Amino acid sequence: MNYLVGVDVGGTNIVCGVLDLEGHILDTLKEPTEASTGSIQVIQNIHRMIETVLLRQNISLEQVLAVGLGIPGFVDPLKGIAVLAVNLNWTQVPIAELLAQQLNLPVFVDNDVRMYVLGEALKGAGQDYDHVLGVTVGTGLASAMVNHGRLYYGGSFMAGEMGHTPIEGVDQKCACGLIGCLEIFVSAPGMVRQAQRLISERNESILQACNYNSAKISANEISKAYDLGDSVAIQIFKQTGKLLARGLANAIPILSPDVIVIGGGVAFAGERLLAPLRRELANLVYPDYLQRIEIKTAAWINEAGVIGSALYAKQRVQHLQ
Amino acid sequence: MNYLVGVDVGGTNIVCGVLDLEGHILDTLKEPTEASTGSIQVIQNIHRMIETVLLRQNISLEQVLAVGLGIPGFVDPLKGIAVLAVNLNWTQVPIAELLAQQLNLPVFVDNDVRMYVLGEALKGAGQDYDHVLGVTVGTGLASAMVNHGRLYYGGSFMAGEMGHTPIEGVDQKCACGLIGCLEIFVSAPGMVRQAQRLISERNESILQACNYNSAKISANEISKAYDLGDSVAIQIFKQTGKLLARGLANAIPILSPDVIVIGGGVAFAGERLLAPLRRELANLVYPDYLQRIEIKTAAWINEAGVIGSALYAKQRVQHLQ
Repeated sequence: MNYLVGVDVGGTNIVCGVLDLEGHILDTLKEPTEASTGSIQVIQNIHRMIETVLLRQNISLEQVLAVGLGIPGFVDPLKGIAVLAVNLNWTQVPIAELLAQQLNLPVFVDNDVRMYVLGEALKGAGQDYDHVLGVTVGTGLASAMVNHGRLYYGGSFMAGEMGHTPIEGVDQKCACGLIGCLEIFVSAPGMVRQAQRLISERNESILQACNYNSAKISANEISKAYDLGDSVAIQIFKQTGKLLARGLANAIPILSPDVIVIGGGVAFAGERLLAPLRRELANLVYPDYLQRIEIKTAAWINEAGVIGSALYAKQRVQHLQ
Repeated sequence: MNYLVGVDVGGTNIVCGVLDLEGHILDTLKEPTEASTGSIQVIQNIHRMIETVLLRQNISLEQVLAVGLGIPGFVDPLKGIAVLAVNLNWTQVPIAELLAQQLNLPVFVDNDVRMYVLGEALKGAGQDYDHVLGVTVGTGLASAMVNHGRLYYGGSFMAGEMGHTPIEGVDQKCACGLIGCLEIFVSAPGMVRQAQRLISERNESILQACNYNSAKISANEISKAYDLGDSVAIQIFKQTGKLLARGLANAIPILSPDVIVIGGGVAFAGERLLAPLRRELANLVYPDYLQRIEIKTAAWINEAGVIGSALYAKQRVQHLQ
């Protein structure tokens, strides 16, 4: 039992990896999720992907210690149930038990952001730090905290919804029903929302060329426009960095992380986002904290979720023994 | 070794208690701190107080398992050093070692708010909950989190400074040097600050009668004025509750506590503060959190710090064994 399997189940793609017990990836496989086919079919696809990637590495199921999965949504990790995964259209799916029966292996499941942050904390940008706050900025904004290699859960495993902390002066309604949540503007769709608003006010951005209507503006296009000196794109990154700083300024004195790892799709913008973020943090956070906190982008591009899921499964097995 | 000693070292008074191993108080003693006499003298006073309270209960030093102390300020609990305790005028005082030598007992020290919240979490308002967020509103505003009976520390033991999270729209400077910290208004001096500002604007509050100058207004006087229907006092509690709700709304999605225990001097105001706090939380926090969180005032009036210090010392001894 010298191997681990980690599976990152996304709304669009599934990434399945086989790793050694230290969390080094030996091989990965990526396939479309095809969530519309239903949970039973998706779980069978995961089963087949695991067998394929193991076969490619000449590893048998008997050599696998445990399987970990990251699911986008609300998960009960103790029961192994995907309670509500909107992007997968899953409600109360007992995925750990179903997959464990098929594989005859221990299977553990948790929220995808926690698995991603655990991967970065143990084998990525946070690996040299005891207290890692990870924030993913992508379709939404979420967070997780890893202390001495262990995830922080809180009551009902509900810790980490930094995207739904309130920002004063934002009057727009969030998908969650509240007014002024951080992720309304600090997320990929949130940056597009800012772009649409600014373009309608100014009518002078190269982002208009993305499409005759602004529907196809993306965080990536905003990055490109930034690099061309587009004033709207520059303002979007400045504003997004400032608002993210405000969210972090609320979390830092409460959690006292050693490092903050910014991941998710928007993190690929790098210093375009981090420079205004750091400037604003200096206004909002007591120097004794800031002097000791590193702020980094995630080290992995696609694999942090797979690594985190695999090492989480290892932790769970060890804890059970 | 069937007893514990807990000592709550305040800027004004020291409370010293002897407890059984379950954390039940058998006896307490309260004396002025007399911080101006210097750390060596204060530590000798603590030594003498411990001997006095044990003698009163006919308990010898040899029957004591460990001694715990709560110190107001920045503490290194692993080294047992009071790093900076402004109210005591202490810098880098190795109090655990000094007292351990005198008593020939294991002595452990931590920040007083953590000890207070641990006491409430284990034997007070939080005792039936796994995840307890404690907030003390008094001279300042501080917080601590206890998960499954264990304190959360973060990097450099610096977690819990909720009082220094930024509030938008507050332009006043905090003693820490930042602009707009929560404790500028949500604290006993902060409520007096609000009173002074409102009185100067309106000139129609019974709080003016506290003194010809407004220097003697206190949080307690504001409570009394509230009960007499004073509009300024009512507005102060409404505003303080709203601002505290904003601080808690930032912490709740990140930490997911099961219960929030509000302690410190201002908590004696009870529903005067909690009613506006609850109303505002409903606007700011996702219902899935609020439905499962209890908000309570502290159960103990003066003893939570003594209980927490004693049980903390017990935890440390057990961890060392």
